[in-house]
Amino acid sequence: MTRSDAQRNREKILAAARTSFAEAAEPISMAELARRSGVGMATLYRNFPSRRHVLEALFADEVDALLTAAEDTTLLPWLRQFFAFLQSKHPIGAELLDLSNDDAAVLEHGRHRVTAAAEPLVTAAQRCGEVRGDLTPEQILAMVKAIAQVPGEPAYVEPILEATLDGLRPRDRWRDGARSR
Amino acid sequence: MTRSDAQRNREKILAAARTSFAEAAEPISMAELARRSGVGMATLYRNFPSRRHVLEALFADEVDALLTAAEDTTLLPWLRQFFAFLQSKHPIGAELLDLSNDDAAVLEHGRHRVTAAAEPLVTAAQRCGEVRGDLTPEQILAMVKAIAQVPGEPAYVEPILEATLDGLRPRDRWRDGARSR
Repeated sequence: MTRSDAQRNREKILAAARTSFAEAAEPISMAELARRSGVGMATLYRNFPSRRHVLEALFADEVDALLTAAEDTTLLPWLRQFFAFLQSKHPIGAELLDLSNDDAAVLEHGRHRVTAAAEPLVTAAQRCGEVRGDLTPEQILAMVKAIAQVPGEPAYVEPILEATLDGLRPRDRWRDGARSR
Repeated sequence: MTRSDAQRNREKILAAARTSFAEAAEPISMAELARRSGVGMATLYRNFPSRRHVLEALFADEVDALLTAAEDTTLLPWLRQFFAFLQSKHPIGAELLDLSNDDAAVLEHGRHRVTAAAEPLVTAAQRCGEVRGDLTPEQILAMVKAIAQVPGEPAYVEPILEATLDGLRPRDRWRDGARSR
């Protein structure tokens, strides 16, 4: 098997796992995951010795995507991506926490990486006056994270998120910039 | 014993219970509660047959205080009181939920009363243009409730609450009213 075949198998497994998380009410078994990925059990277990390894890889991939997005956008659109990440990753994070105490370290590491990625975006947004200066990156992330835990349909939760993000605007900007908007 | 003596005993017990909740890391026993209240065990049990009854009475008292406050204020100051209520009542609510499934009904009833109290305040604030019109009372309460769950010291959490409450202002008001502020 070539290196790219191996990479393709890994990606097929992760894609199937990602879909199954989004769709299935119940966690799927490793056998079911192999079936849905179209790979054999041996290939599945060579890539991921346990269900926990699948979850960790999914979680790390999503954190990577969020970090990549941070390189190419500004704070407010990125906070919406962070919100979507929190909502979609909630079942993975919850199951990781259930599976083992060690996994709290995986989540904690992800949290540090996300905070580090948020810092330059917050600094830039505060410097150009888009975002109020009295909150730290940690506080802004905590705010969005709290709203992501509001239960309900998107049509119910998203207006709450939008109002919350409006609260990040500096008051002075609304006053001084009122005529130019 | 006169009626007012009986009332005074009940209030002494609830005051001691309230203080013990604010201070003690561990839930205090009924015996300890009697000692701190300065009443006998018989008096304690006549007023409150179980610890759960104490918790329910504390919770109902705090909901009453919140409802009384709603009659005499406007939305934003009241939301700050609601926030303080959520933070201080969290241990009581959590213990009530632990003690029995029935108690979810007590909390649910409290939730309905609080939502009903919020409605006229939200309507008034929206009508006079203090608060944006695209959120329902339930959504506004859910927003404040979410922020009340952010872990941390008041100096960390309160600026997050203030930013969130700023987000309740209608954008138009900032624009149109910019010169008159």
